[in-house]
Amino acid sequence: AVEGPAGTDDPEALTIAELEGVPFSGIRYTGERWALADVELLPPILPSKVVGVGRNYAAHASELGNEVPSAPLLFLKPPTSIIGPGAPIRLPIDSKQVEHEAELAIVIGGRGARQVSREDALKSIFGYTCANDVTARDQQRSDVQFTRAKGYDSFCPLGPWIETDFDYADAGVQALVNDVVKQDGRTKDMIFDVPTLVSYVSHVMTLLPGDVILTGTPAGVGPIVAGDAVSVRIEGLGTLTNPVANRA
Amino acid sequence: AVEGPAGTDDPEALTIAELEGVPFSGIRYTGERWALADVELLPPILPSKVVGVGRNYAAHASELGNEVPSAPLLFLKPPTSIIGPGAPIRLPIDSKQVEHEAELAIVIGGRGARQVSREDALKSIFGYTCANDVTARDQQRSDVQFTRAKGYDSFCPLGPWIETDFDYADAGVQALVNDVVKQDGRTKDMIFDVPTLVSYVSHVMTLLPGDVILTGTPAGVGPIVAGDAVSVRIEGLGTLTNPVANRA
Repeated sequence: AVEGPAGTDDPEALTIAELEGVPFSGIRYTGERWALADVELLPPILPSKVVGVGRNYAAHASELGNEVPSAPLLFLKPPTSIIGPGAPIRLPIDSKQVEHEAELAIVIGGRGARQVSREDALKSIFGYTCANDVTARDQQRSDVQFTRAKGYDSFCPLGPWIETDFDYADAGVQALVNDVVKQDGRTKDMIFDVPTLVSYVSHVMTLLPGDVILTGTPAGVGPIVAGDAVSVRIEGLGTLTNPVANRA
Repeated sequence: AVEGPAGTDDPEALTIAELEGVPFSGIRYTGERWALADVELLPPILPSKVVGVGRNYAAHASELGNEVPSAPLLFLKPPTSIIGPGAPIRLPIDSKQVEHEAELAIVIGGRGARQVSREDALKSIFGYTCANDVTARDQQRSDVQFTRAKGYDSFCPLGPWIETDFDYADAGVQALVNDVVKQDGRTKDMIFDVPTLVSYVSHVMTLLPGDVILTGTPAGVGPIVAGDAVSVRIEGLGTLTNPVANRA
């Protein structure tokens, strides 16, 4: 658990409290504590699946020339695409246009979710984190299926931690490239809100503890190139920053 | 391990030999043995991901009105879609057209596969099994993305076992509905062959031990309805049979 003065995400002000075991059925502390600056954060969860939702903000659907869908448009990112804060996003050699997509990520809790109603959906959520749904835009266009374009190793940065005390209804979602704001949306503009997404996905595929749903990206997606630093910042949650590098 | 007279897949003639531990780094027997008819077979592998390949037989691409792709067309099925032999395929209430797709499935071995060449690809394969890439055809058409249509719980039967001694080059791949042959293709007609697929996928996403690649389906796909029994039979490998039922 990461703790500090209310509202801050300044690493200097934050400390890490060590948890005992898996937190899904209640958080227990070991009593150990470190300065955030002294630890390397890994991906906060290694889910069995990452379910993405396309075109969930009207202005983003429009900027790519797409209609707003009448139901959530689902895709999957493989678990091997997940990296943590600070780990490099590796650009594949066969894409000329890799882009950032800042997104709020839902982390499913210990009860999982199978055919849950919209009304019961929040009980299935453990917390929230920041995600960058990195996408090879040229391949997304040419393949039509999103899988390759969104599935490369390192194309799913998650972090910096899971926030269990978060109001999903109206939080700012930003992407910054080299500290310049490129995406600046609010979760209230989602076409399908958080409970609707959990309910919808859970009627297709059972969500297991720790599974992640990416809730779509606001307008302003754009390219990242080797040498950039790209951040996803969500109000009340934290900032996920990753360097961008060419594939080794 | 399942063993019997060469070439048979008659359950009456086959026995099961119990393995010790994980077989990826060499198969060791415990000495225990049972008649196949006395055991319930579970899914032979629970992979971290299932990578599907669309339109890999020209006659099937044509029957759905699609062009043959210039590179393998990838999609993902969630691990929660996997069931074993004999487990029911559950029809979701929001599809009117669920179809069978008989496929040869590749199971990745203990070394995994990351950016492997076509020449080295076979060294990354542990074995092969039968798969049914069950698809809600109406949703596949309306969503464009394949994820929902192919992602329902129970939509990825795998089995009956993993065959480590199998020649992928020219094996018959059949689907039978209530013992009537509906699909009857041969792996030699794949557009992208087994080593090409492993190499291609491994350049996008690292394949972990046990990961599964579905190699595409031959022509003849068609509907399954509650009460049917659907089988995938692959020459030299075995038969995977599942009943079809409405969602509970």
